[in-house]
Amino acid sequence: MPDLSLHSFPVAQRTVFFVSDGTGITAETFGHSLLSQFELRFKQIRMPFIDTVEKAHDAVMEINEACRKDGNRPIVFSTLVKSELSQIIRQADGLHMDLIQTFVEPLEQELGVKSTHTIGRSHNIADSEDYKNRIEAINFSLAHDDGQSHQNLEAADVILVGVSRSGKTPTSLYLAMQYGIKAANYPLIPEDFERGKLPSGLLPFRRKIFGLSIAPDRLAEVRNERRPGSKYAAIENCRYEVNEAEKMMRREGIRWLSSTTKSIEEIAAMILQEIRLNSRIS
Amino acid sequence: MPDLSLHSFPVAQRTVFFVSDGTGITAETFGHSLLSQFELRFKQIRMPFIDTVEKAHDAVMEINEACRKDGNRPIVFSTLVKSELSQIIRQADGLHMDLIQTFVEPLEQELGVKSTHTIGRSHNIADSEDYKNRIEAINFSLAHDDGQSHQNLEAADVILVGVSRSGKTPTSLYLAMQYGIKAANYPLIPEDFERGKLPSGLLPFRRKIFGLSIAPDRLAEVRNERRPGSKYAAIENCRYEVNEAEKMMRREGIRWLSSTTKSIEEIAAMILQEIRLNSRIS
Repeated sequence: MPDLSLHSFPVAQRTVFFVSDGTGITAETFGHSLLSQFELRFKQIRMPFIDTVEKAHDAVMEINEACRKDGNRPIVFSTLVKSELSQIIRQADGLHMDLIQTFVEPLEQELGVKSTHTIGRSHNIADSEDYKNRIEAINFSLAHDDGQSHQNLEAADVILVGVSRSGKTPTSLYLAMQYGIKAANYPLIPEDFERGKLPSGLLPFRRKIFGLSIAPDRLAEVRNERRPGSKYAAIENCRYEVNEAEKMMRREGIRWLSSTTKSIEEIAAMILQEIRLNSRIS
Repeated sequence: MPDLSLHSFPVAQRTVFFVSDGTGITAETFGHSLLSQFELRFKQIRMPFIDTVEKAHDAVMEINEACRKDGNRPIVFSTLVKSELSQIIRQADGLHMDLIQTFVEPLEQELGVKSTHTIGRSHNIADSEDYKNRIEAINFSLAHDDGQSHQNLEAADVILVGVSRSGKTPTSLYLAMQYGIKAANYPLIPEDFERGKLPSGLLPFRRKIFGLSIAPDRLAEVRNERRPGSKYAAIENCRYEVNEAEKMMRREGIRWLSSTTKSIEEIAAMILQEIRLNSRIS
């Protein structure tokens, strides 16, 4: 998610609405991405499931009310599939960013077919193969979090390795949730460094392994939040572990990247690119 | 994610590109949402991290190549912040859906300020409060998955309850990942039904509890995938558990919804609305 809350930004007297006939996640993702190009903070209101004429009229009232209160037109990001509902929302006093209507017409012309104009596709979604693959991937990644299980590793799409707190767990879950990728993850621990070898259960799957590293001072910071003042979090120990882990990955020919300044979205997208894996979701 | 792979749809001789200077997640989320309005399947190619003139020229070549191969113009969804790069991509033979350039100018006019036109905000993202809250929420939800821990439940934003396989785990993780919500989850099990009471550790937090239910035949289907032919998966047992769980939730005044035909995105968005919780991410 783009970040809009850098606290140095001035707060605009301006409300942003995300209006959708579904979850509103598309409107929000896109709106955040666009607003992050401005160094302002906004009051944000999510309006999901606006799927009837009545709810659309209620939404218009709320937008107009914000306009009066702020003394500025709200910014309205909307993804309403039915043009009937979209037309109602457009009556509200605001700057309208209508994501569907703006693009659906050129797309219809290009493809030479009409869009379905159905509201949502929820039943299709929850029943679809893609959706099942995602849920299966989430379950797989959970069952194979933090080296919990060596079973069924042949089914993994990728196996992340790295020292404790290098970002393996959230990245694995994100790969599963966003892309339907089955991502196992294994910690590299001092015992592995002493033996100078990868955990033996991983050896048959070396080609699926991808490493995460992290700058030692950042690692010490993160670990200190969890176990303040511990040996585990001490900078010397963090330096030792990171150094050993990178040495091992280099020796074993494991590709890796540094998670230090990256978000989990960025790490996940980079891993997909590196291992040339495609999303399991079409 | 919208679903584009219903297998009854014809496959269009048409390639879709998602071109971005960052992860491409915005372009993809939006593109999927728009394409799901058409009953066609497309070949999809993700092009993240197109952040130099050279990479942009390479992307143009690839798009033009797809155009030649397909005999149809590709559809190009792009979120390129630098207009220099955006202009290069537009030289490719395709139908261009330029998400940033289309909307950034009206937004600049409305706000009376220029956009930052910086590429990505990755460093800001990984360092921001919002991002830390999300990671913390993911860790919290993992530590409180499936009733693993009663510790620190006062920090939970929501506690999901429901029978095994009603969708609690993926929903909790999605709430954490997308919205920065700390979501614990607890299974309702036969022992709870025999006692006729909620797990005692949850009682002090009754107001934060939200239930998930599911149609017994769907539950039997899901459980049979996991443990085929077991008592656990038997339709009579599923009927019994769902019935008892719903009775208990009704008696205890717990709000709940049915996950049967809903995606985790929909369940999460509905829960947020019901409990009037706002995203922890601004």
